[in-house]
Amino acid sequence: MFDKDTLGKYAELVLKKGVNIQSGQGLEIACPITEAYVAHAVAEKAYSLGASIVRVRWEDELLDKINYINASEKALSEVPKWFVASKNYLAEKGFCYIAVSAEDPAAFKDVPAEKTAAAAVARSRALKKFSETVMANGIRWCVAPAPSKAWAKQVYGDGEDSVKRLTADIEKAMRLDLPDPQAAWEKHVQNLERRAEILNGHKFALLRFENKLGTDLTIGLARDHVWLSAREKAADDVEFIANMPTEEVFTAPHAGIAEGVVKSSMPLSYNGQIIDDFYIRFKNGRVRDFYAEKGNDALKNIIGTDAGTRRLGEAALIGKNSPVAQAGTLFFNTLFDENASCHLALGKAYPTTVKNGRALNLKQLKALGANDSSEHVDFMIGTPDLKVTGIKNDGSEIPVFTDGEWCF
Amino acid sequence: MFDKDTLGKYAELVLKKGVNIQSGQGLEIACPITEAYVAHAVAEKAYSLGASIVRVRWEDELLDKINYINASEKALSEVPKWFVASKNYLAEKGFCYIAVSAEDPAAFKDVPAEKTAAAAVARSRALKKFSETVMANGIRWCVAPAPSKAWAKQVYGDGEDSVKRLTADIEKAMRLDLPDPQAAWEKHVQNLERRAEILNGHKFALLRFENKLGTDLTIGLARDHVWLSAREKAADDVEFIANMPTEEVFTAPHAGIAEGVVKSSMPLSYNGQIIDDFYIRFKNGRVRDFYAEKGNDALKNIIGTDAGTRRLGEAALIGKNSPVAQAGTLFFNTLFDENASCHLALGKAYPTTVKNGRALNLKQLKALGANDSSEHVDFMIGTPDLKVTGIKNDGSEIPVFTDGEWCF
Repeated sequence: MFDKDTLGKYAELVLKKGVNIQSGQGLEIACPITEAYVAHAVAEKAYSLGASIVRVRWEDELLDKINYINASEKALSEVPKWFVASKNYLAEKGFCYIAVSAEDPAAFKDVPAEKTAAAAVARSRALKKFSETVMANGIRWCVAPAPSKAWAKQVYGDGEDSVKRLTADIEKAMRLDLPDPQAAWEKHVQNLERRAEILNGHKFALLRFENKLGTDLTIGLARDHVWLSAREKAADDVEFIANMPTEEVFTAPHAGIAEGVVKSSMPLSYNGQIIDDFYIRFKNGRVRDFYAEKGNDALKNIIGTDAGTRRLGEAALIGKNSPVAQAGTLFFNTLFDENASCHLALGKAYPTTVKNGRALNLKQLKALGANDSSEHVDFMIGTPDLKVTGIKNDGSEIPVFTDGEWCF
Repeated sequence: MFDKDTLGKYAELVLKKGVNIQSGQGLEIACPITEAYVAHAVAEKAYSLGASIVRVRWEDELLDKINYINASEKALSEVPKWFVASKNYLAEKGFCYIAVSAEDPAAFKDVPAEKTAAAAVARSRALKKFSETVMANGIRWCVAPAPSKAWAKQVYGDGEDSVKRLTADIEKAMRLDLPDPQAAWEKHVQNLERRAEILNGHKFALLRFENKLGTDLTIGLARDHVWLSAREKAADDVEFIANMPTEEVFTAPHAGIAEGVVKSSMPLSYNGQIIDDFYIRFKNGRVRDFYAEKGNDALKNIIGTDAGTRRLGEAALIGKNSPVAQAGTLFFNTLFDENASCHLALGKAYPTTVKNGRALNLKQLKALGANDSSEHVDFMIGTPDLKVTGIKNDGSEIPVFTDGEWCF
């Protein structure tokens, strides 16, 4: 766990740089019950920064597991109206939202995948409005990690120092080990923004990914796509950082253009189940076939969620020398692993990754090629030899990545 | 904390004898995050008894305290509609409800009483429909204790064995130390029912309470009042036990008849604040004046909640030799202390404590003298020398308690 000093820095960072909480604003924190001390510290700091009220949505994977194992798919699929209302309440009341991520990557390994899938599908359908709000930055939100015992065990084993090591990883990735984390983040964000600017200048039509693992995939980019990075503006024009750590520069693919095959380069922990060693083949932008050596049922459930989970909604570039990648550790947590590796996402595109996207309706977004879905699931494709090439409308090619790292 | 064996017995007891869960029924458990293992054990057992789904409403007094200290009274008074809906959902969906009580009696001692009061008043007003449902047994519910560290500290001090001692008290009071707790409860319940029957036979008009501490109070009983004890029938005609432990035989006073003064015999922990050494004087059924040597503001807030908190809603009789009383311990928890001592309650009367009460509307209940309020707060008045006398309509007097114990 974080020590007191780090905890103070952590709270300040996620509140100021993360959600950028404003005086008089409400805050919701989603937090596992095992990491309550983090919620308490963030709540106290939030008040000192002028929060009006702090609500905590407690999470508990042990209870979830008991439910998944014992309840029927039908019972698990019931999402109460009040639960949906409790989520939509955040945007209605202008709350900002911090999610403390400390999932046990293998929490539900003993649960049949169709059980977790039934619950996940029902929830993501019921919460479509909420996820649209979040993905369009209708509220300021930030996902940040905390070192739970269960997570540390999956990363570093049963040893006594597992939590300590994961804690150190988190502190490093979040730049909490530096004397002035706020200043370090400012510098980091500006670096990422510079790269996004260069990419935006190129106005690529296509991106090609190639490596020795077997990836040979060309994807289209949405018309009017915008490369974004760490810092975005919310609907209220106030800046925030949605992920901490974050190392990615990302944009919207064209949902109708993807040809070839992509191989996973890291296991994916999704809903407490691990999917590993998989390929996905695309034809005309749509998943044609796929297979995972491990967790194929879980992958099938993701892809089968709705029409949109058969197409791409995000392409993100991260150099192999990113601090998270350099840790050389597999974290089994998307918040980390996506920042160690170039990745794609199945499902909904962030509306903000096309020009003026927040002002566009679904039809207009689709017309530009931005994908729609009730889900958005990242999967990692970066390797040390990954080559990424940008292709312009005139057919000219610009190297973007070579040997897994930025060319500029 | 409970050991594994006791935990199993506990879960079975609160589920079978407590809420009497039926196959296919949903269950909600309200539980402090510090006692999650209790919720997990009850959830697992509930499924083995046929529950369809188990939801847990996590509680956290540390967060509550942070909110009370830092948020404004206005912000604390906002009760979201979805929160109200989440409570009413239980009756709508036919859930039963278990509340795990492990409060720190002094959780909010550093919080200004007006802050906790503002929140409590707003909540009880917003949840009036829900508490009406609960008090009329519209759902089957059960409050049962768990030995938290914070609670044990208030009862037994900082010592290492505090939790152990409180755990033993709870096991004893809940008859979990006996080989067959279910059978022991059946016998206990029948004993209480026998006493209630005798009282019902007398059809008292008034009850007089007297002791050397200074209590000299005569209260009316509601017309058609019914003495109840541990076991009741819910709206669906299924039996349940609402409190574990429970030693009381109780009924509805007449809201318009109470003359004299009553002295508290034990401290009252209410909303994390302790009220002690107080008197309340009644005139024509209404609180005329009162004073608490400790926590007078908190008492003032209770009495000032609404018109109904100025009148009585329950009279309960418990002998000084009850197992809880014999422990000789002050638990600072109403679930325990009310079962160690005769008590009265300010606020709403249980509709079921008048004949056919569940079928009567508010106007009809009031016509019989049953009090209405958004609150119901017990306070203890029993002493080893307490004398309780029943007075019939013809003026004849029947001794009910002498020297703090039943006369029959």
